[in-house]
Formats: sequence, structure tokens, C-alpha cells
Amino acid sequence: MSGGTIHGVGLGPGAQDLMCVRADRLIRNARHIAYFRKRGRSGHARSIVEGMLRADAVEYPMEYPVTTEIPLSDPRYNDLLSTFYADCTAHLDGLSARGEDVVVLCEGDPFFYGSFMHLHSRLAAPVKIVPGITGMSGAWTASGTPISWGDDVLTVLMATLSEEELTRRIRDSHALVVMKIGRNLPRLRRAVEAAGKQDSAWLVEYATMADQRITPLTEATDVTAYFSILLVHGQGRRP
Amino acid sequence: MSGGTIHGVGLGPGAQDLMCVRADRLIRNARHIAYFRKRGRSGHARSIVEGMLRADAVEYPMEYPVTTEIPLSDPRYNDLLSTFYADCTAHLDGLSARGEDVVVLCEGDPFFYGSFMHLHSRLAAPVKIVPGITGMSGAWTASGTPISWGDDVLTVLMATLSEEELTRRIRDSHALVVMKIGRNLPRLRRAVEAAGKQDSAWLVEYATMADQRITPLTEATDVTAYFSILLVHGQGRRP
Ligand SMILES: C[S@@+](CC[C@H](N)C(=O)[O-])C[C@H]1O[C@@H](n2cnc3c(N)ncnc32)[C@H](O)[C@@H]1O
Ligand SMILES: C[S@@+](CC[C@H](N)C(=O)[O-])C[C@H]1O[C@@H](n2cnc3c(N)ncnc32)[C@H](O)[C@@H]1O
Repeated sequence: MSGGTIHGVGLGPGAQDLMCVRADRLIRNARHIAYFRKRGRSGHARSIVEGMLRADAVEYPMEYPVTTEIPLSDPRYNDLLSTFYADCTAHLDGLSARGEDVVVLCEGDPFFYGSFMHLHSRLAAPVKIVPGITGMSGAWTASGTPISWGDDVLTVLMATLSEEELTRRIRDSHALVVMKIGRNLPRLRRAVEAAGKQDSAWLVEYATMADQRITPLTEATDVTAYFSILLVHGQGRRP
Repeated sequence: MSGGTIHGVGLGPGAQDLMCVRADRLIRNARHIAYFRKRGRSGHARSIVEGMLRADAVEYPMEYPVTTEIPLSDPRYNDLLSTFYADCTAHLDGLSARGEDVVVLCEGDPFFYGSFMHLHSRLAAPVKIVPGITGMSGAWTASGTPISWGDDVLTVLMATLSEEELTRRIRDSHALVVMKIGRNLPRLRRAVEAAGKQDSAWLVEYATMADQRITPLTEATDVTAYFSILLVHGQGRRP
């Protein structure tokens, strides 16, 4: 009696045919589908699988109690989120206990800065992970240029870091990916400029999706989508 | 008259059903298939697609003239490789000029430290890239533990770097991926120890493949496969 399996399934960067064959099969056959979304939204992960679900699929949207209304540093932010994750976990563990398998939709790769990780670390039920193409792979593919060569060092940063730390690490890397940009773009831009890399930085919004847009950082406005990634391509050794 | 398209297609980390749906379709329908391999080997990329090819598929194996017989630093290494890449490119451009599409099989993601990049930068023919799940995603999925949380900094290093540079960068990162290990493992191990991270480092060999093996670095011998990745998981912020 080990119970149903909770599958954390990577959807890839956005285009439906960029999810892997294993994910495609699991999603088309699933009786129970769960996904995160912002309150009042249809949900980005859910929109990627539009048209793929069984007619009798039971959906469990997990609505964030808070996104940017409360700053990360406020202790209420942590409390609200950890209660929310605990509630979602209890629901999924309950389904598993009744012998049901559940597919949890995850943007990109589940174990790479993903929200599902917060359920994974709490679940008692058996869990299986299906990896996915990351958003950053979608972004450098969209840019038409390889991200890293030879022995280039690739650094992945979150734009939520301090300007000082961003600057130091941007200066010290050959190839660069920055995620979680949104309203942090002005700070990120100052850091890229301080590191002297503004002329080789690209902003990729909605990589592989219908609204995909690629802009040199020097031409980008200070407003960018949640789904945006900054790239500096490596220039390493190549025969 | 723009000619046939050369598709650089990511295969993912190794398990056949971890390639994306777009890659799966292109490979099953391809009349021309090209892939790199070591001389005298059947080829790893080719083995991932075993059973998927059309009966009338025409295969073009591109055999490396040299792998580890000549050191990277020897100028002959560069000459041999650049002649080799130019020859492969000429063949693919020739097929394109005759209106043929070609699928070039790429391990992992084509634009992430991939060999196809050396053809991509030389080809005159139209090129399209299909991204793939990287080997490192396969590795952290196999490890059962998320690689990065919150605002963790993730650093991707090649074990071909100097011991000093490895040490400095391993010390300075929260989450770590090291690739191209093979015979560099003893040096990499010394660097991980100097950075004080030996107790949280894992060696993942043949991630998602039949021979997958996961070993704490402290228990690993000094011999490891070409397909091996070292991981240190991030411990960042989590509600
Ligand atoms: C919480 S992280 C999740 C990352 C995801 N697990 C992955 O593997 O890409 C969210 C960030 O991923 C990035 N992202 C993911 N997919 C993207 C896409 N298709 N285009 C642009 N950015 C994307 C954005 O920077 C966004 O802020
Ligand atoms: C030339 S790089 C190619 C990387 C590839 N383009 C990718 O996206 O993963 C080769 C290195 O990738 C790593 N690698 C790729 N797939 C792997 C797997 N399934 N298991 C372990 N290591 C892998 C190894 O470190 C190997 O030395």
C-alpha cells in the first residue's frame, strides 16, 4: 500500500511541442492535474497544456495567496506561503492515499528554481520527477547564438540579488543567464553597465511562446515581463 | 531557392522519451540523419535514437579525427578539428543545396557546450535549432534533490579549468554543476576539497541512461566516465 504517485512534470519553456515525450504521455493520460497560478488568472502552466487533457480530467489549481503585494522580506510572506504549500501538499497526499496518481505541471524543469520543489520537500506520497527543457535553453535558442563554448564559465543569477552582488558576479562570468527580472530590471541594468557588459546583453521575453521578443539590453525599456531572461553569450575557445 | 534546412536537434540527457515532441517527430520523419561519434564506436547520439529512424534513412556519421590522443594545447589539435568541422559543414551544405533537409543529432541541448555549435558557426545553409533537456537537468533529477532555490547562484564549470580557478569558483557558488570530468576527476576532487565542499558533492554518471550511477564524491574512485557530472545542491531560501 504505497499510494498513488505525484508526478512533478516539466513542461519546458512554453511551446507545447517542446515538452518531452514522457511528459506528453503523462499529461494526456492523467486523471488528476494540478498546477500553480496567480489568483484570478487562468494560469501559465495550464495554458501550455491546453487541448491535451482528458475530457474527464479533474483539475486542482493551486492559487498563490500572495505574489508581489507583500515584500519577500516581510515575515508574513513566509508564513502565508508555507501555509499555502502545506495545504496543497495535504490535498495531494490525500489523493495519493486514495490510490490516485496526480500530474503536477511545472514550468521549465521542476528542480531548477521551481515552485514544485516546495511541495516535493513536504510530500509524504511517492514522487517522480520528469525533467524539462529550461526557460534559459528556450531563451538562448531564441537568440540564435550558443550560450557557452569550450571551458566558458556559465553563471545563473536571480535579479533579486543586490546590485553589488549582481555587478561582481556579472563581471566575473563568461556566459551569463539572469532570471526573475520583472521589476528588478533597472537595478539589473545598472549592474550590467557597471560590469561593462551592456553591449553584449540581450533580453529575451516569453521565449518559445507566441509573444517571444528579443531586444538588445541597450534598447529595452525598464518594463519587462515575469517571463524574461537576460543573456550574455560566452565567447570561449572554438577550433 | 534557399535550400534544405539543417536541423540541430537536442536529444536530451539519454533516455529516449526525454527528447521533446518536436525532436521526436523530426527524427522519425528524417530522410537524412547526421551525428558525431568517436572513430570505431557506434556513437552515443545514434544509440539514443535506436529504433526511431525511417527504414530508408541515410546516415552520415561524423567521426572525430582525434579525441584525447593529442592534448588540447597542441596546435595540431585545433588544425585537425577545424578541418574536420569544415569537411562536415561542406557535406551538409551540399545536401542543403540539393534541397534536402538534414537532422543533426545533438546530445542534451545543442547550444549548451555542444559540438554542433562548430558546424552552426560555419554553415551557409538555413539552420533551425530544437532545444533539449540538458545533461545537468538529467543529473539533478537523478539525484532526487532540487539543484537551486530562491536566489541561489548556480555556477556551471568545466573540469578542464585549472585547479586554482576551479577552487575559487567552487568556493564562491551556492549551487554547482561541473561537466567534462573524465580524467580531470583527481584535480576536480582536490579543488572541491580545497573549497570545503567534499561532503555535499555528488558524482552522477550516465544520468537517465541504463548505466546511471550516483555516488557521493567521497566514495568515488578516481576513474569516471565521459558522461559524468558533479553536483553540489543549493540550499537557498525556501518558505
Ligand atoms: C520560478 S523560475 C522557474 C524556472 C523554471 N523552472 C525553468 O526551468 O526555467 C521563473 C523564471 O524563469 C524564467 N523563465 C522561464 N521560462 C521562460 C521563458 N519561456 N521565457 C523567458 N523567461 C522564462 C523567468 O526568468 C522567470 O522569472
Ligand atoms: C560536450 S558537453 C555537451 C553537453 C550537452 N550539450 C548538454 O546539454 O548536456 C559533454 C558533457 O556533458 C555532460 N553530460 C551530458 N549528458 C550527460 C548525462 N546524461 N550524464 C552525465 N553527464 C552528461 C558530461 O559532463 C559531458 O562531459
